[in-house]
Amino acid sequence: MENLSAVLHGVHDLRLENQSPTIPQANEVQIRVQKCGVCMTDVHMLDNGTVGNNIILKEPSVIGHEYSGYVTAVGSDVTNVKAGERVTVDNLVACGHCARCKRGHTNVCFNHGYIGFPPEGRGGLARFATVPATCVHRIPATLDFEEAAMMEPLSVCVSAINRADVKLGDDVIVFGAGPIGLMTSQVARAKGASSVCVADISKERLELARKLGATHTALFGADETDSRTNAQRIRDTLGDCPDIAIECSGVPHCLRTAIYAVRPGGVVAVVGIGPDDVSIPIVDVALREIDIRGCVCNNYCFPASIKLVASEKVMVKPIISHRFRLEEVHHALDLVRDRKVVKVMVDCSDN
Amino acid sequence: MENLSAVLHGVHDLRLENQSPTIPQANEVQIRVQKCGVCMTDVHMLDNGTVGNNIILKEPSVIGHEYSGYVTAVGSDVTNVKAGERVTVDNLVACGHCARCKRGHTNVCFNHGYIGFPPEGRGGLARFATVPATCVHRIPATLDFEEAAMMEPLSVCVSAINRADVKLGDDVIVFGAGPIGLMTSQVARAKGASSVCVADISKERLELARKLGATHTALFGADETDSRTNAQRIRDTLGDCPDIAIECSGVPHCLRTAIYAVRPGGVVAVVGIGPDDVSIPIVDVALREIDIRGCVCNNYCFPASIKLVASEKVMVKPIISHRFRLEEVHHALDLVRDRKVVKVMVDCSDN
Amino acid sequence: MENLSAVLHGVHDLRLENQSPTIPQANEVQIRVQKCGVCMTDVHMLDNGTVGNNIILKEPSVIGHEYSGYVTAVGSDVTNVKAGERVTVDNLVACGHCARCKRGHTNVCFNHGYIGFPPEGRGGLARFATVPATCVHRIPATLDFEEAAMMEPLSVCVSAINRADVKLGDDVIVFGAGPIGLMTSQVARAKGASSVCVADISKERLELARKLGATHTALFGADETDSRTNAQRIRDTLGDCPDIAIECSGVPHCLRTAIYAVRPGGVVAVVGIGPDDVSIPIVDVALREIDIRGCVCNNYCFPASIKLVASEKVMVKPIISHRFRLEEVHHALDLVRDRKVVKVMVDCSDN
Amino acid sequence: MENLSAVLHGVHDLRLENQSPTIPQANEVQIRVQKCGVCMTDVHMLDNGTVGNNIILKEPSVIGHEYSGYVTAVGSDVTNVKAGERVTVDNLVACGHCARCKRGHTNVCFNHGYIGFPPEGRGGLARFATVPATCVHRIPATLDFEEAAMMEPLSVCVSAINRADVKLGDDVIVFGAGPIGLMTSQVARAKGASSVCVADISKERLELARKLGATHTALFGADETDSRTNAQRIRDTLGDCPDIAIECSGVPHCLRTAIYAVRPGGVVAVVGIGPDDVSIPIVDVALREIDIRGCVCNNYCFPASIKLVASEKVMVKPIISHRFRLEEVHHALDLVRDRKVVKVMVDCSDN
Repeated sequence: MENLSAVLHGVHDLRLENQSPTIPQANEVQIRVQKCGVCMTDVHMLDNGTVGNNIILKEPSVIGHEYSGYVTAVGSDVTNVKAGERVTVDNLVACGHCARCKRGHTNVCFNHGYIGFPPEGRGGLARFATVPATCVHRIPATLDFEEAAMMEPLSVCVSAINRADVKLGDDVIVFGAGPIGLMTSQVARAKGASSVCVADISKERLELARKLGATHTALFGADETDSRTNAQRIRDTLGDCPDIAIECSGVPHCLRTAIYAVRPGGVVAVVGIGPDDVSIPIVDVALREIDIRGCVCNNYCFPASIKLVASEKVMVKPIISHRFRLEEVHHALDLVRDRKVVKVMVDCSDN
Repeated sequence: MENLSAVLHGVHDLRLENQSPTIPQANEVQIRVQKCGVCMTDVHMLDNGTVGNNIILKEPSVIGHEYSGYVTAVGSDVTNVKAGERVTVDNLVACGHCARCKRGHTNVCFNHGYIGFPPEGRGGLARFATVPATCVHRIPATLDFEEAAMMEPLSVCVSAINRADVKLGDDVIVFGAGPIGLMTSQVARAKGASSVCVADISKERLELARKLGATHTALFGADETDSRTNAQRIRDTLGDCPDIAIECSGVPHCLRTAIYAVRPGGVVAVVGIGPDDVSIPIVDVALREIDIRGCVCNNYCFPASIKLVASEKVMVKPIISHRFRLEEVHHALDLVRDRKVVKVMVDCSDN
Repeated sequence: MENLSAVLHGVHDLRLENQSPTIPQANEVQIRVQKCGVCMTDVHMLDNGTVGNNIILKEPSVIGHEYSGYVTAVGSDVTNVKAGERVTVDNLVACGHCARCKRGHTNVCFNHGYIGFPPEGRGGLARFATVPATCVHRIPATLDFEEAAMMEPLSVCVSAINRADVKLGDDVIVFGAGPIGLMTSQVARAKGASSVCVADISKERLELARKLGATHTALFGADETDSRTNAQRIRDTLGDCPDIAIECSGVPHCLRTAIYAVRPGGVVAVVGIGPDDVSIPIVDVALREIDIRGCVCNNYCFPASIKLVASEKVMVKPIISHRFRLEEVHHALDLVRDRKVVKVMVDCSDN
Repeated sequence: MENLSAVLHGVHDLRLENQSPTIPQANEVQIRVQKCGVCMTDVHMLDNGTVGNNIILKEPSVIGHEYSGYVTAVGSDVTNVKAGERVTVDNLVACGHCARCKRGHTNVCFNHGYIGFPPEGRGGLARFATVPATCVHRIPATLDFEEAAMMEPLSVCVSAINRADVKLGDDVIVFGAGPIGLMTSQVARAKGASSVCVADISKERLELARKLGATHTALFGADETDSRTNAQRIRDTLGDCPDIAIECSGVPHCLRTAIYAVRPGGVVAVVGIGPDDVSIPIVDVALREIDIRGCVCNNYCFPASIKLVASEKVMVKPIISHRFRLEEVHHALDLVRDRKVVKVMVDCSDN
């Protein structure tokens, strides 16, 4: 059976190769991939061979961690899905038995792996992927395969909003109107935020944010980097200090702005990844009892993510700006690197 | 009635003056001060005329925010204490009705003041102090006035341990073996921590930490400032990653060490105050979902603090290293500035 | 100045009397009442002279605890509102300084009173009411006085949903489609619940529930009282166990049904008031780690309630079924007693 | 290899039989049992063949769920323990991958089983037991095998205290001075409770409670069953309303007393099992916002339990009142049934 796959062999060395589909083990599920999204982390992996300290390419690895498809085969112990069902894949592989998993903090599982990254591999930029059954979630008929492929980035947003603990009536500022910011702002509203302001340097993206439900937007010039001034702008825009800030841009001065902007006792969730080290106003953090909460991947947020789209509380389709075929994956990644797209979706269906 | 008082008039301008004791308003309590502790924040105020952005000396102000005494008069509406009772004073004046108070986050009350700091004044480095009744807490017969005066710094420690959410069986690292670190480590134990390691550059202080119940200590040289190396030292000392770090030193590389040391999903509470800005490893914070939680003053922790000392779970007397009379307050503050003391207690009793 | 007021003198002895409007003290606000809702608790008070163990009529008392109006005078210390502003009144008077208030649990304040009930009085079934400034909330121009008068019952619903801790993607069952149930189901949706089922014995009320956003309804016959069977019906209706149950009916077998229906680890919030004692399946509660959480009044939920209506996430106007003038208050209460209405609104404006 | 085992065949039909020790599968560990405690739940199983609705004897099953020993063999995938190590066994078998496990609420895992109960079996009233590796915890050298066998009941207490959310300075009332009550009161103290009152009808047991650290005791006559009166007794004994009540007796009027006794906003944790249905004062629960929280088994509390005993914060040895050899298991169970013992320990070592 043909199984064209995007295999990362080294820095700047991604090859489209034909691999035999993996036969599922007892607890595994084989999926005929239909759609797979691409994001900046894939580009970072391609350009550096690593993400953070723990993800390091040593063996060739199939990439792609935002995907959907239908089940083609299941192992003998699998009970949650069966052949023919339409599914999406949670890229977090958590062990279920370490101290972190036992406490319900699965995304910092001591033994976790990420599907679509080494050494886990099993990525969705391929015709077939075989993954642990516990990562596979059925999707309702109302979601198409593109929406289903968006469940991975959406789950990151749901996880961040849960970490930030948005409450009924809260005012929220979201930094960055990329795919994560555009979905995070919707999830904040879905969880009861009254006002959600999205900040970015792109007027077009902010217009999209408005269409997707942001109540306020703040357009900054690329050279407007004074955090105290920007914080005041955001307070003026919202009419009050935000209760919560979600930093999705990875830009250092935005993190500082977030800290200055939130009210005493407020929360800053750090989702965006930029430079390793950032200088923050720590005395302000202490004297105003700010919380800074790191966010990574998702903590069992696929069920809620699927329900949010099924119940039309979150719209993901308008975020997809470009579509490619699997054979065009190199071009797709180039566009993401150049930030000329919002969200890129790759069709792996071979139809 | 004589009322010798330490009045701050300006930078480096603290004067011992005789003021008439203030007659209590309907909701106020007049206290004959017995003991008042002095800390580095008092020195900072004396040397700079400000603390943070909000506390600024504009009018002469009586300082001293860690004190105890007995009630000499109460206003007409006061019901929680009566004349003759032995009391200690919570230096946080919270309004009780703003959005932060209503949510139980009183130490970031939108209208708060700090007794012993401008513009609130009413400090305890005086013979008499008149304060809001809601700040006054009775002390049991088993606490002497020195212990009672320690309730303010102890309440800071209790508040930090609550913010850090120490759980049964947790391993905790405390940076700094000054008064706050020495009490924080005891409170961590009282809340169920199994192992508590205190880190400092003073061998003597670490010996005191051991006597007060720390299960481990980590002595660092003043030139050992590599945070990754130090984090590993702490992990080796504890035999595992700490769950929680409490930063009480205000030293930037200690904050970085705290972040590197804690386990994924761990908490770093920021109690110590140092430079306004500190560079932190933000990608590590994000990828391991670390929480950084600012801590200031105390959030209604006087009742628990009093009980902890009354039930002998926390010992505060061994921390008091030096004692002075009110007339010697300038010398007392000099010693604190030179870091030649652990805790200084001032006798305001005129006996 | 004329001030027609509904004064409760004793059991079944409610009199419309003309009282002089109270001049506001320093921290008080005088309000020209416009609209005041009436609920079953008012009827209970009229018929029994008591509610629970703590509210007992001893002196004549002006009733009415769901009201709005505009400010006619403010005391000298009032800063949150000024004369002419449109406002609504939180009927909970919390002291702000007891141990419960300090912990942010204001609705169980040790010194609380309820506006519109003895001994607090100050009710809104009158032309004028004078209340503590901390209870007064400005309303935006988009809310009319009827909507504003609904903030009190809505705040009860918001408080219950907060207590129940509804999360993104939860399935919720609400028992009772009276005013509280009809608003609670909307708040559940606003906080991120995916599916909300409302159960009642009235087909008409369930149709209203659907119009207001309930995703499912369960119609029970008045004689269908077997809790296990009913629990299964609810599970079948939702397609899964509810995560959360909100009991708003006060009917004992509904509370039992709620317990049987929720999933292991689920929450049952008790809002409705019925008989003093109810038999519950306590072994089931223990073995499945169910939480039963009592709910009363509201815990600082007016700001969120106002925002929910202003942002059109909750609709309250369709719940108002009957309208009367203040002079008709006896008739209004009779209709509530006979359960022939959904929500009754009384016009106190004298226009 | 000889493997004498207590096999439950039916109601009142427990047989000591010789079974071949089970060879461990890849993820299993074989243990040479040394000590196994016996509790009332074992007696209930023997007398009824069921516990609750879910545990039903259908096939012969080895009982005993509180045990320790040393590892004799491990499966090929086991990494957490190795042959020769001293261990204790968490009797909760949680799947690690259902929605409850993913949320960290493992004791209500949708797929859970209990070691020592059907259909799981694998009980410790035997010479050998073979169990999932994830249930096996190493014990430090400072714990003997009896203490290690007490980790299962102690973990129930730790789990209950966590559920009840005891905070620094809380006052706690514990109903029942059996093994669970005697350990729960110690854990409450270890988590920071200032005052812990234990209530029982046995003077001797209350004396033991005092020796183990209870600060107060309340002796009730067997005929003192008026809950309001008893609640007042407890408040008088503690000098204030308890913040938290832990019901470990399973006696209905004690549960009612617990509800009446706690302060507004207080928590009642339900640990003891008695009649299926109990009448509770639900209006009081609602009007005072009481929480009633069911408790079962333990939620990953073995690590903390082991540390609590290793650090001498909890003493378990004084609770063991009777010791028997495995061959005397029938007699041991009879004594538990007749409530003539505190805690019974069975020696399975064959030494």
